[in-house]
Amino acid sequence: MIKKLLIGILCGAVILTVGILIGNYGITKSSSPEPSWFQDVAKDVDESFIEKFLAEVDNMQIQENLKELTKVPHMATSAGDEQTVQFMLERWQDPESGLDKAWREDYMVYLSFPDPKKPNKVTVVDPSDTVLHTVREKEKSYYPDQNHPDVVQPYAAYSPAGQAQGKLVFANQGKVSDYQELNKTLDLRGTIAITRYGGAGRAAKAINAAPFGVIGVLVYTDPLEMNDGLMSDANETYPHSWYLPPSGVERGSFNTHYGDMRTPYLAAKEETYRIPPEDITGLPPIPIQPIGFEDAYILICELGGEAAPSLWKGGFNCTYNLGGPGFRNTSPFNSSDVRLDIHNYEEVKKSGNVMGIIRGSVEPDRYVIYGNHRDSWVHGAIDPSSGTSVMLELTRVLGRMVKQGKWRPRRSMIFGSWGAEEFGLIGSAEYTEQYFTKLSERTIAYINVDIAVFANATLRASGMPSVQNVIFQAAKQVSAPGTSMSVYDNWIKYSNRTSPTQEVIPRIGYLTGAGSDYAPFVHYLGITSIDMSYTYDKTKTSARIYPAYHTAYDTFDYASRFIDPGFVSHQAVARTAGNILIRLADSLLVPFNCSDYSEVLNVYLKHAVNLYKTKLQAKEISMEPLEQAVANFEKAASHLEQVIRSSDLAKETPLKVRRINDQLMLLDRAFLNPLAFPDKYAFRHVIWASSSAGQPTFPGLADAFAKAELSGQPSDWAKVHYHLSVVSQAIDGAAYTLVDVI
Amino acid sequence: MIKKLLIGILCGAVILTVGILIGNYGITKSSSPEPSWFQDVAKDVDESFIEKFLAEVDNMQIQENLKELTKVPHMATSAGDEQTVQFMLERWQDPESGLDKAWREDYMVYLSFPDPKKPNKVTVVDPSDTVLHTVREKEKSYYPDQNHPDVVQPYAAYSPAGQAQGKLVFANQGKVSDYQELNKTLDLRGTIAITRYGGAGRAAKAINAAPFGVIGVLVYTDPLEMNDGLMSDANETYPHSWYLPPSGVERGSFNTHYGDMRTPYLAAKEETYRIPPEDITGLPPIPIQPIGFEDAYILICELGGEAAPSLWKGGFNCTYNLGGPGFRNTSPFNSSDVRLDIHNYEEVKKSGNVMGIIRGSVEPDRYVIYGNHRDSWVHGAIDPSSGTSVMLELTRVLGRMVKQGKWRPRRSMIFGSWGAEEFGLIGSAEYTEQYFTKLSERTIAYINVDIAVFANATLRASGMPSVQNVIFQAAKQVSAPGTSMSVYDNWIKYSNRTSPTQEVIPRIGYLTGAGSDYAPFVHYLGITSIDMSYTYDKTKTSARIYPAYHTAYDTFDYASRFIDPGFVSHQAVARTAGNILIRLADSLLVPFNCSDYSEVLNVYLKHAVNLYKTKLQAKEISMEPLEQAVANFEKAASHLEQVIRSSDLAKETPLKVRRINDQLMLLDRAFLNPLAFPDKYAFRHVIWASSSAGQPTFPGLADAFAKAELSGQPSDWAKVHYHLSVVSQAIDGAAYTLVDVI
Repeated sequence: MIKKLLIGILCGAVILTVGILIGNYGITKSSSPEPSWFQDVAKDVDESFIEKFLAEVDNMQIQENLKELTKVPHMATSAGDEQTVQFMLERWQDPESGLDKAWREDYMVYLSFPDPKKPNKVTVVDPSDTVLHTVREKEKSYYPDQNHPDVVQPYAAYSPAGQAQGKLVFANQGKVSDYQELNKTLDLRGTIAITRYGGAGRAAKAINAAPFGVIGVLVYTDPLEMNDGLMSDANETYPHSWYLPPSGVERGSFNTHYGDMRTPYLAAKEETYRIPPEDITGLPPIPIQPIGFEDAYILICELGGEAAPSLWKGGFNCTYNLGGPGFRNTSPFNSSDVRLDIHNYEEVKKSGNVMGIIRGSVEPDRYVIYGNHRDSWVHGAIDPSSGTSVMLELTRVLGRMVKQGKWRPRRSMIFGSWGAEEFGLIGSAEYTEQYFTKLSERTIAYINVDIAVFANATLRASGMPSVQNVIFQAAKQVSAPGTSMSVYDNWIKYSNRTSPTQEVIPRIGYLTGAGSDYAPFVHYLGITSIDMSYTYDKTKTSARIYPAYHTAYDTFDYASRFIDPGFVSHQAVARTAGNILIRLADSLLVPFNCSDYSEVLNVYLKHAVNLYKTKLQAKEISMEPLEQAVANFEKAASHLEQVIRSSDLAKETPLKVRRINDQLMLLDRAFLNPLAFPDKYAFRHVIWASSSAGQPTFPGLADAFAKAELSGQPSDWAKVHYHLSVVSQAIDGAAYTLVDVI
Repeated sequence: MIKKLLIGILCGAVILTVGILIGNYGITKSSSPEPSWFQDVAKDVDESFIEKFLAEVDNMQIQENLKELTKVPHMATSAGDEQTVQFMLERWQDPESGLDKAWREDYMVYLSFPDPKKPNKVTVVDPSDTVLHTVREKEKSYYPDQNHPDVVQPYAAYSPAGQAQGKLVFANQGKVSDYQELNKTLDLRGTIAITRYGGAGRAAKAINAAPFGVIGVLVYTDPLEMNDGLMSDANETYPHSWYLPPSGVERGSFNTHYGDMRTPYLAAKEETYRIPPEDITGLPPIPIQPIGFEDAYILICELGGEAAPSLWKGGFNCTYNLGGPGFRNTSPFNSSDVRLDIHNYEEVKKSGNVMGIIRGSVEPDRYVIYGNHRDSWVHGAIDPSSGTSVMLELTRVLGRMVKQGKWRPRRSMIFGSWGAEEFGLIGSAEYTEQYFTKLSERTIAYINVDIAVFANATLRASGMPSVQNVIFQAAKQVSAPGTSMSVYDNWIKYSNRTSPTQEVIPRIGYLTGAGSDYAPFVHYLGITSIDMSYTYDKTKTSARIYPAYHTAYDTFDYASRFIDPGFVSHQAVARTAGNILIRLADSLLVPFNCSDYSEVLNVYLKHAVNLYKTKLQAKEISMEPLEQAVANFEKAASHLEQVIRSSDLAKETPLKVRRINDQLMLLDRAFLNPLAFPDKYAFRHVIWASSSAGQPTFPGLADAFAKAELSGQPSDWAKVHYHLSVVSQAIDGAAYTLVDVI
């Protein structure tokens, strides 16, 4: 009995133990108080989702997008532009593959147009006022596209209207130094200068000219720079190749500052205060007009005077003379003037951005923004619709996943289809002005894909150094069209450098200019940004850009036959950019690398020390604060990386992960100083601001130093000291945000 | 057998079930995968901890602190200042009751001092250069404190050195309108103006004078404004009461802009670029010197000329004449001049902040900053050591809790003992310049307690409207000394208004000026701030401020006998401010109320509409964007409050709580515009900036409107439109951050 009792107790104990074990381990999951958000907050990027995404990006869809977008010309605020607004909205509001929400957002912006009823005229007139030659007003038509009634005729946006008549001179690229050179032997007062694109900004060619007394400017594309010297449309240029036909004219905005010019630092809403047009700075003070090289050839080859310096010579098979001023005695144009009759007018018009969002599941208050402008000059197949086609394919694939409930990003994604970029990044700039605080506080990164494919050789990417790593990671997972390599390995072949760890890596560029819509994000908001595209093999062409740029030949036909047959480079860009976008939105840890930022700051410092230190010492200006600041940054960056490495982020409190992510997200904001560049509109990032000194170092310091060396003025040396303090304190300020959280 | 078997199985099943139940419920806590941070992230403020804190705040400790801090004069950068630095460090580094960490942080700042070897002189000299009267150089001594060798003799910091001699005139308060009035009947060129404190800023009295040809200025404290008319030190003034003795002189900084004047927008480090002294704006262009009313009486009562307007008359028992210019014929000073010999000099000197922190446990990257300046003019018992004594008592109580492991705040606390405040808020301003980004990104609030106790009647508090609630909450939990009421109920008796819900509540003030160290936090960083103290019963005294302000009588004896015997008002301030500090640091939800902000914006809007709408309509300037923006803000604020009300925050994902807290923390940042007030140094908050228009509405709009109405210039009306856009877009921008997180 005792034995049985013992066995019973033993059995009971065993059963109880089994029960306890089952109770404790067997049903933990269902009965634990762990809340539903517990797994979500620790979730990292899903690599299998990225694979699925890459597989679904479809080159034929991109081609179809492009076909639709390029049906008609869609210059900002035109009827065609409105059609693309509707098309974007339709796609982003599609119940099967649209975004969570999409809407349009309008601004009233200051634009400039030619008068359709009074075309701009450039003529050669003899002393009796007889017109000897009239420059072509319209590009030659090879296909119906060029004949579309909405093709805007070539003009220089923001050139003042007016008539200018005088003797012609050839002023190379219209740089200050070019006019200075000409001015040595010629009296430029009352002359018309013909210049070629390149070397100086568009508006600068006229702004630089005016102080010398020049009263009108022409600008053309030299076949040497764009066409590798080729000129004949019988067999050499489009429609036979990608090269620019002789009558092709690059349109453009002739402005200096970006954003709506009448509402600086304010969103251009209906009732917003507008400065008077005469207070706008950075516009051409004299008429300027772009022309094709067909006409430039006729004008330049007839010029008299001395031969231009050899570096000024382009691709024409004649001597580039400077002008007597005017044409040579033996020319049929002898004694004749060139006359510009410009009828441009300015107007405040409604321009729309189309916005779309996918709301983040875990951190909806953190944004990854992806954008591209929508407006073109003519059909804009490459610029910008290649980028828009890519963006629409990204949003189709991601939107479908969201609609099917298969995926939702950790952070919010914002897509922007910007308006009026061609007139000066207006749509994106107004957006950043309107939502300044919200975007500054919450944006992880901005990705810009404007022209997605310049050519089909290799990837090209620019960005802050901190994003180098995530670009590389994405590029390694995408195969390069026409090769058996990854986009990454293919890229190294075209552009590379040796990293500090002796590894050969692709070279990424810096976003120091204002060439596309990344500018307001980088320079005004201080948001870590990326700009990317597929581009040329520079050993095979020296074209400044793809030759049909801003002309009536930038059409679907051109894109599909000469830029990217099969749209496989578009596909590679969509896959790479989309991969980056997903990683930025879904990674538990924001994939930014601070040490890569230190590396570049150290390179900049080294250059600055080499270039300036001795001379500054002589002025009793110490570079020690800058050296110390870069050292502080380096130490702080490696401290943060140590914190990251030593943390198991998936197990840490979500607030610790958020804390580190905030440090990474806000790093670029620390470099902003709204007072650093009073003469440069909305340039506030002291590391990446544009610079005219042409030195690979801190821009404010480089420009101030160049100016002081030239003038020798103590007040200019004081400004060098000032900029040294500005940049040192910005870098120190950034280091403070990294080194610890208190 | 079967029965036994069944019983056995049944028993086994019961035992198993019991086991499962034990396993599942009995030991859940130890075996659940719930991580250690899980409870922490959801923890709210602990009311029992606040009770403990309130109980431990000790008035006698505050008294001892004050005794120690006021042993010697401690003007910025003096030996006494250094002693207080060491004292703060010792206390904050105390192993039993110190903070986690404390350190000093130095700046090289531009200060102004009198020359101890060549005292400033003010004399009456007759035409033969005989000195008829010499103004007292030193305040009369009643106790050894006034005789301490480190007492700085009365001077106007930043007054230029130099001699000025001329006929005396009485210029009331030195406002522009005062000089205009005088100028109607007198030629002011070459005169010396005597002015009384009040009405205009210190520097303004000289800046306003110079354009009229005035060459020197005196300033005194009229007994009517400070002493309720009392003048005799035989029985009326200190040491018999709190009133200013006849020889007492208010020292001060005669500057217009705050922060180190030679390093605008940069931290004043050793090698920082410094603007040349001659480029500093806002300093007196002519010598100025403060004097006691004992001497002012002698000078003013001897003046000739017409009687001053009745509003100019002060407390002297003589006629306030304007001056002939100069003294009346019957005066012993007849034909005499007044001569100023000012020997002030400027020097860049090292000034220290003492910083201390308690690291937050859950969100160390969120800061609640509590600060007070350390430097005085003389012994500074009230200004600022009353505040420092309170701060030290707070840190003693909190530090001890931390050292004993009993408590650690959720968020980090930063304590700042600022240097060189008296010279223009220099220590705090440099701190905000040095750590601009870090502080902007992470600071929940700044609490300033400078003069803790002006008088012992009632609490006084100013701040952004969003903090009204937490101030009230804290004030309700503290008992008002000398009453049976709470600080809150006592406060209502002295200053109240009817809230929109018809409840009578205390009236809080706005931080629109730059009177203490809150200014760089409010105006430069846009950080939600609070400034508080105990203050007067205004029905019992009309003193402009406590009478010993900035004199050699502001001593421990004065404070303990006349301002707060027993230090119970100090204790009430310490309890209230500490309670707020703990709530801001420990509350799960940041205790800010957006609707209180809307209420004030609506009040401001109503005033603006009443004052300006009709006149602006006539100028075709619409106020609709402003009306719309305030409506947008109101809607967004109530949306956020709806989100808060409908969430059980302790159960939500910590990232959602953080998200809402970020919206609340960053709200004031949305109102910043670095370009809104180009003439006002470091004023960037478009709602709370200082204004000279004297209207309870948006300051930029009010000032621009006043100017335009005066000048009638179209360019001034354009600026009104500009400010309307600035303020509308700032309010819209703030609304965007509240309405949703994407």
